[in-house]
This record gives sequence, structure tokens and C-alpha cells, in this order.
Amino acid sequence: MNTNKSLSDLASSNRQTPLNILDCTIRDGGLMNDSRFDDKVVRAIYDCCADSGINYMEIGFKNSKKLYSPDKYGAWRFCDESDILRIIGDSKREVKLAAMADTGKSDYKTDILPKDKSPIDLIRVACYSHQINDALDMVKDAKDKGYEVSLNLMAICALKESELSRDLEILSESDADIIYLMDSFGSLFCENVRYLMEKYRRSLSAAGKKIGFHAHNNLQLAFAKSIEAVECGVDFIDATMAGLGRGAGNCAMELMLGYVGRDVRPSLKCVQNHIEPMREKLGWGFANSYMITGFLNEHPRDAMAYQEAETQTDITEFFDNMLSKKAQ
Amino acid sequence: MNTNKSLSDLASSNRQTPLNILDCTIRDGGLMNDSRFDDKVVRAIYDCCADSGINYMEIGFKNSKKLYSPDKYGAWRFCDESDILRIIGDSKREVKLAAMADTGKSDYKTDILPKDKSPIDLIRVACYSHQINDALDMVKDAKDKGYEVSLNLMAICALKESELSRDLEILSESDADIIYLMDSFGSLFCENVRYLMEKYRRSLSAAGKKIGFHAHNNLQLAFAKSIEAVECGVDFIDATMAGLGRGAGNCAMELMLGYVGRDVRPSLKCVQNHIEPMREKLGWGFANSYMITGFLNEHPRDAMAYQEAETQTDITEFFDNMLSKKAQ
Repeated sequence: MNTNKSLSDLASSNRQTPLNILDCTIRDGGLMNDSRFDDKVVRAIYDCCADSGINYMEIGFKNSKKLYSPDKYGAWRFCDESDILRIIGDSKREVKLAAMADTGKSDYKTDILPKDKSPIDLIRVACYSHQINDALDMVKDAKDKGYEVSLNLMAICALKESELSRDLEILSESDADIIYLMDSFGSLFCENVRYLMEKYRRSLSAAGKKIGFHAHNNLQLAFAKSIEAVECGVDFIDATMAGLGRGAGNCAMELMLGYVGRDVRPSLKCVQNHIEPMREKLGWGFANSYMITGFLNEHPRDAMAYQEAETQTDITEFFDNMLSKKAQ
Repeated sequence: MNTNKSLSDLASSNRQTPLNILDCTIRDGGLMNDSRFDDKVVRAIYDCCADSGINYMEIGFKNSKKLYSPDKYGAWRFCDESDILRIIGDSKREVKLAAMADTGKSDYKTDILPKDKSPIDLIRVACYSHQINDALDMVKDAKDKGYEVSLNLMAICALKESELSRDLEILSESDADIIYLMDSFGSLFCENVRYLMEKYRRSLSAAGKKIGFHAHNNLQLAFAKSIEAVECGVDFIDATMAGLGRGAGNCAMELMLGYVGRDVRPSLKCVQNHIEPMREKLGWGFANSYMITGFLNEHPRDAMAYQEAETQTDITEFFDNMLSKKAQ
């Protein structure tokens, strides 16, 4: 039976086309600690990416210092080139770098430098549906500056089918190289991912766009959904070390590496030495509060507040509150 | 889009035929604490099962006191009728009871009473392939005594296809009412479950056998795999409160209840008040050591030993050892 594989020829994945694995531990994980990571952790992830055959490392956000005070937020909310270069130092490795710019939260015109002045390879522009036009400006700006560019349309689960179709048409005509299918609330099921991958492909492939997928683990389905996307031929797949990311977290990199048959060993070491030690303080990962917002297809913010509260109220009180909110 | 559901009409499941949900928290969870649970925890799960519309509660093992000393093991390794009746008391609820007898470890002839002398409804006989003949004797014995009976064939992932086919033919001719598809090592992927559900159905349905599914969470796929089984028309699905079970644990009951549209609220309370408080001591749930044995399609015992060790060695040392073991 095809489950009997040694880890070296583990690839349970059947796909043939190249897959770009993108690590976004520091970027997504930064939502749990105001993007404050020790240099040694950032460097450890960088080295792990290179050692494991991960294609991209998203090192943080290119967001505005006017909105996010550098007194409160760490370097990886801004990704100044000087900080990135300090991490890379004299030992540049074979892994591309990415940074995410949130529409409406980034001084992109000034803060995103021409590509030849930056070690960043890929700019990922994140937006909600109502921000699409501004996002397109940011995409064009980054493309003109020489970057690979993705557009990550968030919270599609909150759109009507017709709205999503309309947005995908706009995106197919954009300058973006890659369009991401975003499971922003962790609320998608595997069958939804199959359906949406097909929809994205129909809308975008003819225009030469690559497709990416980013899952959250609110329903303990992040890995399962990521497998679906990979088997549907996705071009870019996001994962994070130990699933460290906002709230319930992401698809764990260790699982994805094992699944596609890349080198899982460096990720085991990285997680043990640098990520697990942060678990108690950062507190990411599946919890029933995240399950509730996932099932209800709601932003996880209320669950994050619940998890972070000094004194937690009864979970059924949280549940009832979320149900009432949904019913309004 | 079909993800936009309120929790009250949450059922993301599309199936039409009746589904029996079986809670095996005390039985599978008992592998993490020598089956020692306070009465109030056992009763709380019993009440939760009744309140949430769970069909069966597997209250423990019917295993031998000669093999398992009652000094070391709790009541739920033996499920004496007096202990069960103490839990039920005068307030019997509408939930059937089950107990598991391990082939070769149960004094079933004496310890499994005639049905009319026991509150147990369902006897689950667990066996490995090489034990099938003895298991069939146990199945017949339980059936003759008046019980519903399942046969849970473990570790099928270690069998050749032809061996599995042979075993399924034997099982189709057995006295068992239900045959379980067992993801014993947590090593199956969703596509394997789809394939095996079809295989089990082809071999067993004509003989009138019902099919059950029991997943482990070594690859963070327990819920995803359980969804697959449910959508493939499985008759019985196992889950546990907060996924409490051996090693990486099981499909979480809260997730399954939400998915099929039953009442998740009682399970939230049960988990908060009775299960989560045990987490630090019992230490079940996903960890990279379980992922390694899952990927390698090996019994999780080495990972359990690794997790329980007072001083943990480096995870890469564990990984290398497991790889060498596999290569032998």
C-alpha cells in the first residue's frame, strides 16, 4: 500500500509540476508578538529554508512606521533593508526572500525600494475585496520596481460567488505574477479548496497567473487543505515552522516538507531549538475558541482576545456570544 | 458560498444515511493514564454524549486482570458491570455503551457477561491480522451473548493489498455487525481513506456489514480523514473529547459534532471542565515525534516513549534512529 514509504522517498504527493514552498513564520508569526523576533531565530529559519529546499522565506511586513510605532513593533513589521542585510550578513543562502505589504497600511511608494537596492525578491500585496483598486496600484508599483509580485485577496469566504468572480476577473488583468487563494479565517473545508482551486485556475491560468494557497488551522485542517491545493496543482504553498502564525496557526512546515518529499530534518531542529521555546509565551495553535470562529466563518479576532484574556470566561459564554453576533 | 453557515445549521456534511458517532475518550484516552479516570470525568462524558446526540460511549476495555493488575490499572481497563452501574446510577441516559476487548488480552469467556446482565450494548473486538481466528471466536461469543459486535482490524497499513483482501473476505463471513477501518498508526492520508472505504464497502456491504472508521492524529489529519469517511458513507465514526487518545490522539469530538450539525455546546463545556485540566499530565496530541512515526508508518510506541522521557534527546537523533530502524 502506498503509505509504506521511508522518509527519504516520502513524497506522498503525486504532482509533477514545480511547487514553490513559502515559509511565512516570521511574517504570520509576527501577528502573535508584534513582529519581535531575535535575530538568531530569523537567521535559523533562513538557514532551515535553504537546507530544507524551501523556495521562499517571507521575512516580515513592509508596513508603515506611522501606523505601527517602531517603539512597540519589531523590525519584522517594517523589513528595512538594513535589518534584512544584517540577518543575511556575508552568508547569503539559496532561498528567495519575500515581504508582505498590507493595502492601506504600507508607505509602499517610499518604503519598497527598487529591486536592485533590496535583497527582497517577492512582494506580496494583501488586500480585502473593497481595497482591490488600491492593491492594484501597489502591485504595479512593485512590478515596475522589478519584483516578483503576488496579490493575496483575503477573506474571500465572506464574498458572494458573483463578487469573487468579479474580483478574479480584475485580478486576471492585473500585473501580479501570482494570485493567492486565502483561507483567512481557517473556515474552508477541503471540498471548498478543491472547488476554489478550480475556480481560480479557470479565471487566472489563461492570463498566465500562478496560484498560491495559504491556510489557517482553525478546524485542524490546515495541512489537509494544503495537500488538496498541492494535488490540485497549486504553484505556491505557504507553511510555517510548527504552524506558528496568527491564532490557530498555519500548515506546519514539517508536515508539508515530509509530504512533498523535501528534507524535513532541518525543520525538526529549527522547531525544537527556536520555535517550540516560544510556544508558552506566544500561545498559537488550535483551540476550541478558534474552532468556533472557524465554523462560524468569522475573523478570529474575538477568539484571539478570548485566548489572550488574563482570566478566561466560560467557553460556552464565548460560544453563545459568537452565535448572537452571527445572528445579527 | 457554502462555508457561510451558522452553527445551528452547520452540517457541512452532505450525507443522507444515519451516522453513529462513537465517543472513545475513556477507552483510547485510557492508554495515556492506565485507564485511571475519576468517576466525575466518566459521568461528565456520559452526560455530554447524551446531550450532544452522540450515539455510543465506549467506556473502556474488557481486558484481563491477570495481564493488567488492578493495583496499577484503573477500573476502565476492566469495565466491571458494578463500576459501570455506579457511573450510570439512577440516571441512565439515552446513549449506548460500548467496551473494547483486545484479542489475546481478554478473559472474554468469563468477563463478558450475557447481555441481559450488562448495561453494555456493543462489544468491540480489536485484533491484528495474525490474530483473526481468535478474534472471530470472541466475536461469536459476544454475538451469542446478545451484544452488537464490531471487529476492529488494526494496523492494516502494515499489510500487503492481497493480505488485506484476504482478511476482508474472512471478516465478511464473520458474525460481526460492524467492521472497522482502523488508522492505527495515524499514517493514512485522506486519499488512502477514500480508497480503503471503497474497498471495505465492496468487500463487506453485500454481507450486510456496517463500516466504522477510527483515526489518529499523527499527521494532523484525524478530522480530515474522518470527514472523508463520513462523506464516503461510513456508518460509525470514532472521536474523543479534545482528541484525547493514544499518542497524537484522535479526531476531536467537538470538530465532528460541528461538522455533522449535532450539538457542539455540551462538548465545549465537557472539554473545558474535565479534559483540558488533564492535558499537562497526560500530554496527548500532535508532536513532531508522532509525525515521524506517522510518516514512517510505524507504531507510535517509540514516539510515546520519546514524549514521556524525563530528559528528551534531540529530535533529530530520534528521527535518525527511526529511519535506521525502518531501513532494517
